[in-house]
This record gives sequence, C-alpha cells and structure tokens, in this order.
Amino acid sequence: MKAAILAVGSELLGTDRLDTNSLRLTGLLARHGVELRRKAVIGDSEEEIAGELRALLPRVDLILVTGGLGPTADDVTREAVAAALGRRLHPDAAVLADLERRFQSLGWRMPEVNRRQAQVVDGAEVLPNARGTAPGMRLERNGCTLFLFPGVPTELEGLMETALEPWLAARSGGVARETAVLKIAGLPESVVEERIAPAYDEFGREAITILANVGEIRLQATAEGPEPERRARLQAMVSRLAELAGDAVYTTREEDTLESVVGDLLRAAGTTLTAAESCTGGLLAQRITGVAGSSDYFLGGAVTYSNELKTKLVGVPAGLIAEHGAVSEPVARAMAEGVRRALKSDWGVGITGIAGPGGGTPEKPVGTVHIAVAGPRDGEVEHRKLRLPGDRDRVRRFSAQIALEMLRRRLLAAAEPA
Amino acid sequence: MKAAILAVGSELLGTDRLDTNSLRLTGLLARHGVELRRKAVIGDSEEEIAGELRALLPRVDLILVTGGLGPTADDVTREAVAAALGRRLHPDAAVLADLERRFQSLGWRMPEVNRRQAQVVDGAEVLPNARGTAPGMRLERNGCTLFLFPGVPTELEGLMETALEPWLAARSGGVARETAVLKIAGLPESVVEERIAPAYDEFGREAITILANVGEIRLQATAEGPEPERRARLQAMVSRLAELAGDAVYTTREEDTLESVVGDLLRAAGTTLTAAESCTGGLLAQRITGVAGSSDYFLGGAVTYSNELKTKLVGVPAGLIAEHGAVSEPVARAMAEGVRRALKSDWGVGITGIAGPGGGTPEKPVGTVHIAVAGPRDGEVEHRKLRLPGDRDRVRRFSAQIALEMLRRRLLAAAEPA
Repeated sequence: MKAAILAVGSELLGTDRLDTNSLRLTGLLARHGVELRRKAVIGDSEEEIAGELRALLPRVDLILVTGGLGPTADDVTREAVAAALGRRLHPDAAVLADLERRFQSLGWRMPEVNRRQAQVVDGAEVLPNARGTAPGMRLERNGCTLFLFPGVPTELEGLMETALEPWLAARSGGVARETAVLKIAGLPESVVEERIAPAYDEFGREAITILANVGEIRLQATAEGPEPERRARLQAMVSRLAELAGDAVYTTREEDTLESVVGDLLRAAGTTLTAAESCTGGLLAQRITGVAGSSDYFLGGAVTYSNELKTKLVGVPAGLIAEHGAVSEPVARAMAEGVRRALKSDWGVGITGIAGPGGGTPEKPVGTVHIAVAGPRDGEVEHRKLRLPGDRDRVRRFSAQIALEMLRRRLLAAAEPA
Repeated sequence: MKAAILAVGSELLGTDRLDTNSLRLTGLLARHGVELRRKAVIGDSEEEIAGELRALLPRVDLILVTGGLGPTADDVTREAVAAALGRRLHPDAAVLADLERRFQSLGWRMPEVNRRQAQVVDGAEVLPNARGTAPGMRLERNGCTLFLFPGVPTELEGLMETALEPWLAARSGGVARETAVLKIAGLPESVVEERIAPAYDEFGREAITILANVGEIRLQATAEGPEPERRARLQAMVSRLAELAGDAVYTTREEDTLESVVGDLLRAAGTTLTAAESCTGGLLAQRITGVAGSSDYFLGGAVTYSNELKTKLVGVPAGLIAEHGAVSEPVARAMAEGVRRALKSDWGVGITGIAGPGGGTPEKPVGTVHIAVAGPRDGEVEHRKLRLPGDRDRVRRFSAQIALEMLRRRLLAAAEPA
C-alpha cells in the first residue's frame, strides 16, 4: 500500500513551524507496512488543496490529510476535498447535535461559525473526535482511501487510535516493515558507499539508505513482509552490512552514540578518562558528559585555550610549544600524556588545532588539527594529524568525532586478550 | 513571485526527521517578498521527483530543490531534473577537477563514485559549493527557475548566501519585507509575553512573533511595504519592544549570540575569563570558544567532574565539599573564585549541579544547579541557585545559558562609570 500525507495550513509555510504531525502518522504507517511516498504542506487555499488531491488520487492508495477542519473561514479542507472528488457537502444532523452538546456542557452557546464543522462530504464516514470540535472523515474513491484529520496534535492522535489504526490493522493483515541501523564514525560517505556496494546488489538499493553528518555515517536497512521472513531478512542485511563496513561500525543500536559506546567500553574495562582540549574548547568533554552516568569513567578535563594553561594545567613544557608551535604533534602528544598524568586517569586525549577563521598560516592552514590518545600505560600515545575542510564549527565537530573514534579503537584493542 | 520547495531524501520520509532546511529557505524567500505556495518531501526516486517537478513547472516561478546531489547511487536529483526538463547530463571537467583537488588536499584518492557529482544538467549554471563536494545548479525553463542545492545544512546555507540571495536580490528589486529580532536570555516566555503585550495592540498581533528555546527568547518584528515607511515602522517596533522588554534584551543583531555578546564585553573591557564546570561538563567553554577570536579573552577552563579535580584543578577545599556536598553554594563560589585565581583571569565562572537522570535526593533533586560568577576583584562573587525542569540535556543547556546571562549583567555593571 502506498500513502501520501498532506498537511494543510498557511502557518506551516512560515519560517518557524514544521509539520510534526506527519512524524506521528509515519510511525503508524511504517508499523503496518504502508509505504509513505511523499508528504506535502499546502496553505489554506481551496484551489491548491483540491489540485494536490486530484494529482494524488490516481497515484497512491491512501491519502492522509491533516488540518483545515476548524470552524473559521480559512479552514477549507472540507470544501477542497468535495471539489477534488466532484461531490457536495451536506449538513450532518448528528454531528451538529454533538457540537451543540459539546458547547452546552461547557456552559456556552455554540457560535454560529461552528456550524461549518457539521458539513460533511457526501459519501463520507464521520469519525467522531472526542478531543475537539472537528470530526474526522473517511472517504473512498476508485480504490483510494482518504482520511481527513484535524491538525491539533492531541485530536489527531485520538483519531489515529480510534479510526486509522483499526482500519490499517484490518487491511495490513499483520504485514509490517522494520528498520535496523548501523552507525559508523570517521569514514567519508563515499568510502562507506564503496565498501557496502555489494549489499545493494544482494538486497536491492531501496532497502539500504546511507546518511552522512560531520564524521558520522548512518546506514539504514529496511525489510518488509510477514514474520519470520522479515526478521530473518533484516538480520541478514545487518550482518552483511556489518561485514562489509568492517570495524568502522561502532553500533547497531539506535540509542547508542559514539560517546556512549566509548563510555560503555571505559566502564566495562573499569578505566577512566580525562581530556585536554584546545581548538575543540570543551566540545569533547561536553559530548562525553552528555551521557548519563559518565561520572563513572570521566574524571574531568582541561580546556587549555592559552599556551600558559597548556603548561600550567597539563604540564606541556613551554619549550616544546616554543619550538614546535601550539598546533603540532609533540604538543598534542604532550597534552594527552600530560592530562592523563596530571589528572590521574588511565586514558588521556589531547586536541590542538586551528579551527579558524583566523590563525591559519601556509604551513598550518585552518583545519589543521593534531589529536593524540594516551594510555593505558605510560608512553603509549597514538597520534593523528588532520586537514579538515569546512568552517569553525565543522572543524571542531569533526575533531571531537575523530578523537572519540580513535579512543574507541584503542579501547577495543586494549580489551582484546593479549 | 511564487515559489515551491522540494526536499529530496527517503530519510525525510521516516519517523525521526523533518525537512528543517525549508525553514532556512522560507526565511530568505520571505525577506525578498517571494510567496511560498507549497513544500513537499519526496524519497530518493527519480520517477517521483521528476513527476513532482513536471507538476510544479507550470505552476510556480521558482523551485528550490534540496538534497539528492551526493555521490551515492541513491542520489538521483540530477537525473530526475534532467528527465523532467527533457535534457541530458554531461560531465563537467571543471567540477571534476575541483572534486579531485578536494580529495587530494585531504590526502585521499577520490573514490570512483564521486565522479557522479561532476555530472551537470545541460544548460545549468554550476554553483560552486565551498563547503562540500556537491555543487549546486541553477536552471531556467519557460520562465521558471530551478535551484538545486545539497541537503547538508551548512552546504545549503553557503549556497543560499553565495547564489540564491544575490539572485533574489537582483529580481526582487530590494527587500519587500523585513524582520528585526530582539534576543532575550534568562526570562520565561510568559514573562516576556506579559511585558510586551502593549506592543501587540500598537502594531498588530501578526507583526510580532515570540519564540522560546531553553532559556532563550526570540522576538521577531516584521514590517512590509515600500521604503521608507517599512524601515521606519520596523525601527518603531524594535524601539518599543526593547523599551517594554527592558535590559533582558541582550542584542538586536541577528548574528549575535549570548556568548558572542559576552565575548564582546570582555574584549571591550580588556578582561579575561576562565570557567570551572561540573554538571555542564564543558558546555559553557564549548559555547564560548565557538566564537571566532575567543582566544582574545577566554584563557581556558576546567571540567571538574570528580570531586578530586575540583580540589586539584581549581583549589576547592576538600573539607568544603565534605561539609556541604559538591552541589552547594559554597562549592560553586569556591569553583568560580578558584578557577579565576588558579588560572589567573579577571572573571571566573563556577557551575555545579545535578543534571540527572540519577544523582537526585529529596533535598537536592535533579535540576538543582548552583552558579557563581567571580570577579573582577577578589571576593566579588555572585551566586544563583536554580531548580531547573526538564531532562539532562535541558538542565545542562539552561545552566550554561543562565551562567552567560549572569556574566553579561556583571560585565555591563562593571563597564558603567562608578
């Protein structure tokens, strides 16, 4: 079954609101194996709405419309649907009586404008709305089903439960759709793409989605059909993708983040971490401490923005900075070892770089970043030099991401039996 | 001019993502008096995208497409646009050379898949993308203009600035609609709403928007019509709103953030800052150092997550922690004074609290946070105790926000002639 969602409301075309109702509907559709083909937002224009519906009717099996069922003059969904289907509106006595009762029970007389909400499209089934004045409607036309829902989220949710879900359940006959995720850090999207290419052939290109965001790749695998085939297929996809992507996959659990995975490794090993940050300015510590319970393994850190603090807080020799510059491999190594030693942790991270926009030189352009991970024994320091593209924010985010990924790999290696 | 926005990407049809790019585009369109008629989200299907474009072409003057310009097989916007316009794709040597240079500068060989990004629709103007590998394109067809943009927000923003805004400015003959902003920190939305209520009557409710987000309120005033009336009206609104909201308004410049305003005050006074953070775990330092040039006034900070580090790094007496607990007024004061003294800055901030979800007690529930600001002279320490609602992330963000606002007010007071 193919579906489309249409959100009606000029306020949804402004600069500060998004159609969040569609996320609620999408979750329900996905659980019943309905494929969402498109969603659209249209203003309170009868002509535009009717035009969109006419275009959708022959192309999908299910159209979910939200909004535009209120009592005011700019609520035109009822008229637009009638126009698109070539039908008329009629006043529904039962709906009108119900509306009047609603207002009476609140001690008010029903305003005249609310009569509009008792207008029903010919042939529609009225869907009672216990949470508001706008009833929903269900209509059929040449094998396509339309649901009209109010745009108020709580009212929509009520009707999803009482009207949409039972209807979907009756039709889907247990067929469903499931998604699994693999998260990858520190690899470019195109490298991941090359690695997993064989899986596209094996499972189909539509079944696998790849999303990139500042040093983080998200692979999504989707399987449809009845159990137990669906589950087996999903597991086969995840296994194959994990095999192809290799040890760059840091988790297959949606709730994990790179920093929570690093935290779990630290906790499992009973080891502790500290960090000395220059160009990231606390971003790494902030991500690590964003994880609940991180005080189990993260002792703290130093934001050593000035050269003096690199020396004072984590013991980087002033001569080393003078000789190599603050952004250099020796200083990054000294920061990682220094913070580990000064703050008495098993592991230490040092990050120093030029995030920009100022501060770059021909030898050390903006984006030059040195990252070092020290531990768990004295003198065991790993170093990477990066030349990162992008603006200040991106250089900082990328640096923190790479530092976490370096740490993860070191922790994994340390956890292996010698 | 009528416009439509089309966001491409199957991930935007899932249950956890919305097309937030459209908000950025909508703001720019509104400033240039362009009417947004509709927006739609479509999956990575060449046929669906081409179908949508064919339907839009005769109906609007401007189509903005985001996403689907990546290197991978599911990035099909280029092909779909070519199909919708009945044109072909050709490899662009300049784009290819630029792509290869990008990878070389990172020390990587360009993966074969990235060649797809050098495919350009016949007749398109290539829009160079300094922030990523996917160039944008501009096309004309029977009086309708199409812009193709990458979906990565920072890349989109770059191209909006370098390509879309100049194009709009040339066509709109100047801005038809203008928005001014007033940013406010540390006040609840309802308090701001009460204060500015008279302005609703004076200028109309539609002209003023109020948006709230974790300790930050954004007031937007909008004026339309020709110059000079529009400008005069906007200035009158800003003056009146600033008068009503009072000294809680920290800026009327869009580009300012609370941390950049604090930075400007520090720089103007020639003073320096350090921070000792416990529950915020580096979030404050990360915000301050996110501002370019912050090394002028921010020396660094200590993330003193453990009690030992509170003592070791910023000299909080162990006895004070034992007596009052780590989350207490005396410890926050000692952190602020201690970090200022130990790291030799004019100002010092100390934050200690319980961000949750664990760690709360009946006397000190989750959300209890103590913030202290010390300086510029010894012993001048201001303290606030907060009981913040919300989850870990919200408590942390709110705490950093309040700390910055306390600092801003202290800096303003210190700048006044005695």
